[in-house]
Amino acid sequence: MRIIVDGFGGDNAPGEILLGCARAMEELGIDISVAGDKDKLLKSARELGLEGSFNRMEVLHCTDVLTMEDEPDSVLKAKSGSSMAVGLRALCEGGGDAFASAGNSGALAVGATMIVKRIKGVKRIAFAPVLPTTKTPFIISDGGANVQCRPEMLLQFGLMGSVYMEKVMGVKNPRVGLVNLGTEEHKGDDLRKEAHALLKGCGGMNFIGNIEPRDLPYGMCDVAVADGFTGNTVLKLYEGTALAMMGMVKDIFKKSLKNKLAAGLIYGDLQGLKKTMDYNSYGGAPLIGAAKPVFKMHGNTKAYAVQSALKLVRDCTESGYVEAIGAALGK
Amino acid sequence: MRIIVDGFGGDNAPGEILLGCARAMEELGIDISVAGDKDKLLKSARELGLEGSFNRMEVLHCTDVLTMEDEPDSVLKAKSGSSMAVGLRALCEGGGDAFASAGNSGALAVGATMIVKRIKGVKRIAFAPVLPTTKTPFIISDGGANVQCRPEMLLQFGLMGSVYMEKVMGVKNPRVGLVNLGTEEHKGDDLRKEAHALLKGCGGMNFIGNIEPRDLPYGMCDVAVADGFTGNTVLKLYEGTALAMMGMVKDIFKKSLKNKLAAGLIYGDLQGLKKTMDYNSYGGAPLIGAAKPVFKMHGNTKAYAVQSALKLVRDCTESGYVEAIGAALGK
Repeated sequence: MRIIVDGFGGDNAPGEILLGCARAMEELGIDISVAGDKDKLLKSARELGLEGSFNRMEVLHCTDVLTMEDEPDSVLKAKSGSSMAVGLRALCEGGGDAFASAGNSGALAVGATMIVKRIKGVKRIAFAPVLPTTKTPFIISDGGANVQCRPEMLLQFGLMGSVYMEKVMGVKNPRVGLVNLGTEEHKGDDLRKEAHALLKGCGGMNFIGNIEPRDLPYGMCDVAVADGFTGNTVLKLYEGTALAMMGMVKDIFKKSLKNKLAAGLIYGDLQGLKKTMDYNSYGGAPLIGAAKPVFKMHGNTKAYAVQSALKLVRDCTESGYVEAIGAALGK
Repeated sequence: MRIIVDGFGGDNAPGEILLGCARAMEELGIDISVAGDKDKLLKSARELGLEGSFNRMEVLHCTDVLTMEDEPDSVLKAKSGSSMAVGLRALCEGGGDAFASAGNSGALAVGATMIVKRIKGVKRIAFAPVLPTTKTPFIISDGGANVQCRPEMLLQFGLMGSVYMEKVMGVKNPRVGLVNLGTEEHKGDDLRKEAHALLKGCGGMNFIGNIEPRDLPYGMCDVAVADGFTGNTVLKLYEGTALAMMGMVKDIFKKSLKNKLAAGLIYGDLQGLKKTMDYNSYGGAPLIGAAKPVFKMHGNTKAYAVQSALKLVRDCTESGYVEAIGAALGK
């Protein structure tokens, strides 16, 4: 399998990206193509002592970079020579099996839609991050690719999310819930009411009804269906609240000698909790609905997270989730 | 000051409500009128040994109850004889200075709007719960009263929230932020873009721009402006995530003898953290924009929370926030 990686996406490019790619080649048995300025990549690889690995990577040479400040549409025109655009085109033309970038999310969604194109029948591509819970993890579909949605889009987010959880995460008959103000059917705004009716009437998945945000951290569903605005709010607040809580627990442990002693006793378990709640441990998330596997890696990603993300990319791609989504939507 | 209380709102009515009212009369120097079935209230008071306190309460006798399953509009017609409707009408007619109910939120919002009426110029009443952070608390405006909003409603939620934080919570020049996907001005859907422009153009408050959900737990604003759907999502996910994290920390402490020892060392500090993050410690929240003080108490509220809520009601009402909102919107 060959994964194409955006060498200049995210805050720590290209060094951490190259390091993560080098480790992933070694550990995961994958081939890597890296898009970006060949000279700069080589220089960075030399500084990190990665020349050997770098020589085994294919380089898709291009000098432009799409930044976080660029407009999403720029991937199509002004920045069509950027490492992100070049990588996406290479994927489209069969130069690899999947594409991953830690760059501008909006531009990646536009590029996935317009360059890689959508699976036939898919109205909108959804960003599908995985979140940890006290029990089993769930995905948000959509986690932020579409800030304005129609009810039929939410129906597809549910269908695509269900296929993804089954194929990639191995969850049988995934529980699909609609993020809403209450569990009663009549709750919410027009979008939620209409989406509820569509999801309920669709036989292609295990729709369990509305799910209240307070129940999400307890693993009450496998797929949380939301418009991208709500989904992104859930994603970011979840992450922020968990981090803030961990920070406060940490502060308690630093408060006194007695507390430091307590910290020593349960250090390992607390690290485990931190890891459980660390949304970064998945390293990235797919843009489901694209005709080929496209992944967003976290923007401030380090080599370890790049490697985790590339493992996810490999496993996802091997699972054949793209074809399975096509089959489910074609029904 | 006389506070009118819905004797039959919430899961633990009337017992816990009466107990909380009795304590509040004693501790807070307030008078209480309680709406509900006189015989049932007396029976409950006797069982709890509260006859003395009960005799000092005014009873607004009515036999009907508005339940959680009733439609919000029922407060106006089918359930116009319920304890909630009777209490709201008494407030309107000068029978007390404020009204508090632990009952159906939707019905309370409709009742506040249609029975108590709005402050002149107010488009919609907002539910304004206070949330704790690692630093200072903030309010969400609107936390769930209006699931569908127009931009000018969000502007007013900001203005009303700012007055409330200044008058009631004593925050000088409250920082008002618009809950949005990113800090950049152009982020979000049409509602957010238009609301941003209105908030920015309004000179009546300290608008600090967009605030990302991940920054809310760190006390980055004093007033978080949102449509009721987003606000309620924030409220419930915040609560759920914090509770889930506390639960996981608790589980760690129970895991082994060593961990139990650690728990013993930091028990007091952990209780402090739990209290800090407990959104129930405020007991309730106002429906700002109503022409007289109306408060929602938590549905599963116990006597202690009723007492806390009534303290909040008293302090809020004394602060003159209703008049201050009227003055701010009249500008």
